[in-house]
Amino acid sequence: MTSMTPSPSFSLTVRLEIPNRVGQLAAILQAIGDVGGNLGPIHLVDQNRQTAVREITIDATSPEHEEQIIQTLKALPQVRVLSVDDRTFKLHQGGKIRLQSKIPLKNRADLAMAYTPGVGRVCREIAQNPDQVYRFTIKHNCVAIVTDGSAVLGLGNLGPEAALPVMEGKAMLFKEFAGIDAFPICLATQDTDAIVNTVKYLAPVFGGVNLEDISAPRCFEIEQRLQQELDIPVFHDDQHGTAVVTLAALLNALRWVGKSLERVRVVINGAGAAGLAVASLLQRAGAQSIILCDSQGIVSTSRPNLHPTKAAFAVAQTGTLADALVDADVFLGLSVAGAVTPEMVMSMAPNPIVFALANPVPEIQPELIEDKVAVLATGSSDYPNQINNVLAFPGIFRGALDSRVRHLTPELYLAAARAIASLVAPQELQREYIIPSVFDSRVVRTVAQAVAQAAREAGLHQR
Amino acid sequence: MTSMTPSPSFSLTVRLEIPNRVGQLAAILQAIGDVGGNLGPIHLVDQNRQTAVREITIDATSPEHEEQIIQTLKALPQVRVLSVDDRTFKLHQGGKIRLQSKIPLKNRADLAMAYTPGVGRVCREIAQNPDQVYRFTIKHNCVAIVTDGSAVLGLGNLGPEAALPVMEGKAMLFKEFAGIDAFPICLATQDTDAIVNTVKYLAPVFGGVNLEDISAPRCFEIEQRLQQELDIPVFHDDQHGTAVVTLAALLNALRWVGKSLERVRVVINGAGAAGLAVASLLQRAGAQSIILCDSQGIVSTSRPNLHPTKAAFAVAQTGTLADALVDADVFLGLSVAGAVTPEMVMSMAPNPIVFALANPVPEIQPELIEDKVAVLATGSSDYPNQINNVLAFPGIFRGALDSRVRHLTPELYLAAARAIASLVAPQELQREYIIPSVFDSRVVRTVAQAVAQAAREAGLHQR
Repeated sequence: MTSMTPSPSFSLTVRLEIPNRVGQLAAILQAIGDVGGNLGPIHLVDQNRQTAVREITIDATSPEHEEQIIQTLKALPQVRVLSVDDRTFKLHQGGKIRLQSKIPLKNRADLAMAYTPGVGRVCREIAQNPDQVYRFTIKHNCVAIVTDGSAVLGLGNLGPEAALPVMEGKAMLFKEFAGIDAFPICLATQDTDAIVNTVKYLAPVFGGVNLEDISAPRCFEIEQRLQQELDIPVFHDDQHGTAVVTLAALLNALRWVGKSLERVRVVINGAGAAGLAVASLLQRAGAQSIILCDSQGIVSTSRPNLHPTKAAFAVAQTGTLADALVDADVFLGLSVAGAVTPEMVMSMAPNPIVFALANPVPEIQPELIEDKVAVLATGSSDYPNQINNVLAFPGIFRGALDSRVRHLTPELYLAAARAIASLVAPQELQREYIIPSVFDSRVVRTVAQAVAQAAREAGLHQR
Repeated sequence: MTSMTPSPSFSLTVRLEIPNRVGQLAAILQAIGDVGGNLGPIHLVDQNRQTAVREITIDATSPEHEEQIIQTLKALPQVRVLSVDDRTFKLHQGGKIRLQSKIPLKNRADLAMAYTPGVGRVCREIAQNPDQVYRFTIKHNCVAIVTDGSAVLGLGNLGPEAALPVMEGKAMLFKEFAGIDAFPICLATQDTDAIVNTVKYLAPVFGGVNLEDISAPRCFEIEQRLQQELDIPVFHDDQHGTAVVTLAALLNALRWVGKSLERVRVVINGAGAAGLAVASLLQRAGAQSIILCDSQGIVSTSRPNLHPTKAAFAVAQTGTLADALVDADVFLGLSVAGAVTPEMVMSMAPNPIVFALANPVPEIQPELIEDKVAVLATGSSDYPNQINNVLAFPGIFRGALDSRVRHLTPELYLAAARAIASLVAPQELQREYIIPSVFDSRVVRTVAQAVAQAAREAGLHQR
């Protein structure tokens, strides 16, 4: 994993003891800059007449680059490296989430009400009126983040334990962005039936299920079966979260170039969970011309043994991704680093829109084409127009929980996408501002309201 | 459910508007006292020249008693009842626990380290070195509280949703007493195989499993199979928590009456999960004479079709509980309200020890025998000597998590029981003080250290 520009995800905090003399710090900072390290905060930890202790934060581009910076510092005369912390690993120590009591337990009366014997009265009330579980327990605001570790980020089948840091991060996002109590469930099985049964058995505690990082095509069947068998919303973020945010950004990008979704030629590269969900939601939104490509090129009706999920988007045309891109208006990459060349982009129709969403490294480095396209978006926060699922799932679940939506549907996803797009006002729209920031505090509320209203209109709400 | 004395578990908060004249409040409080309500805090919420608004907390003995108090207040002339809240139900609204991020997510750098892309490095580290899951995730401090809702408190098979308030309460106790992050898992299945498989699949996130309120005899098989198949500690609190605290209290009660565990005749009533576990731990601690009784009387070798878990404690003697209690030194009730009469207690040996632990109402009301026994203990906080599992499970899990104990064993339970007993110093020992308070801050630390040390001695620790 590597980044072209220094990034906080490869960030060091070093403590250095240096002579307390004019010019010493400058020399050190110069040396860091010379090897490409990007300086963050610089603190003075301690000093006396002879020496000063400084704590310096440095962003690098890769673990190897981190190591190079450390060696550079160690080689400097009169500098002692007291400690080196990789900030990302340090931040993860002990895990990133915790549980908290809402109520103090300081005396016997607290215990008698929150636990036995008082709690027994609440249990009996729920046993008699099952709907009261939404009133007297965490269920109304609680989401299970379920994975089997089979498709962790873009890193592959790392297993359930290695997936846990992602799910904890996701729980943080649920909490910080939508006030939702979400808990990581990392399953030690990749068997479809076992996953479906396990999630069914777990459901009583949860008001919703967020499926995460489960590989295709199992993820489709798992989501579908759980939707059928549970009366709480089930949402596979890698599919629908990505589709919602991609559509939102595309609606605004099309506004910017003055083209309509119904008329443009769209090429989607990547026929996994995300690519197929994007294709499906775009169709729903009115797109007429979509060419889906996978690692073998255009998904064509002439190809034998197509999985049904792909067959739904197969076209008569055959050829490579490069063939598909000739005269295309929109490229949506949901595939792998390096899938697209500058030449392919140059072959597109005038004012091309390119979303290179592969993570962590996009299908094409933005630096190579940024002046050749009308609009460019990536999945990374290092560039403008970040397509980030954080814009969708917190608000979708907030709306779904608040109005007790039984099932999420494409109508609700369309409403969410339009709500996100609407937050960029016509006069604000820019080629580098087609989608609101993830820190735009209006996003969750706006998406939640749109989802709740669409659910009411469709009769999907229970509250 | 009812209590002989007014209790916080049947507690009202009422807001009353009353004339702002001398003597009015006294008259109201008198009326509450006349119907048996126990007064708590009385707040002045608002007043003007004509009227005052008071908020009064009143403990009652039952829901019916609560209703009687409300009707009494409504019938008072010149009093307007503005609102009535049952404090226990009010406290449960929205649930009792929440999730929290340990780290703020305020900018792109926070996101890049806690979530993508930075988190991917931590995932890969764990995939390569599986043991690092204990370092970089919540697993090291995380316990699953697992129930199927089949034996909720003493209330029976209420199902998983109705069990959730108990499990949330348990999570609060884990947090408040031992700093452990525990999460409720209420399973929508009561099938032994399904429960075992589900917990196995869930295990990656958790450093331990606390089984709770699962009915006997399924609970024995479930615990045993999970212990065999998982490499994290599995603890059925209804069995071992109860056994540890009961043994701790019994050791001190025997010290008080000057009898030895090896010599006393012990009668245990109740051959469910708790009764069998108590019998087993007492044997382990050296007890030689134990008579186990169930609803049919003495568990005797002459009885046909005994379940193997009961058969292990069967004796030659036959008869009723009353027969068993003649000349017994110790009665341990882990059964149901009203199982014991004063006459049975009177038939016991001199200086009898009676633990009437049925919840919420004991086997015999303490008021009936308190001057006829040497030591009396119950499960309730309304009387001295409360046998409360909160004295055991937080410290046992704290010790087990801190030293990465792979399995919990009877040796560790004995160590925990002795540690709890040791906190009542010889000069402090009283017939009404045989066990430390649940709010004694030394308990968790002392139990945790005892468990960790016993684990080291037995080679059960991994850290």
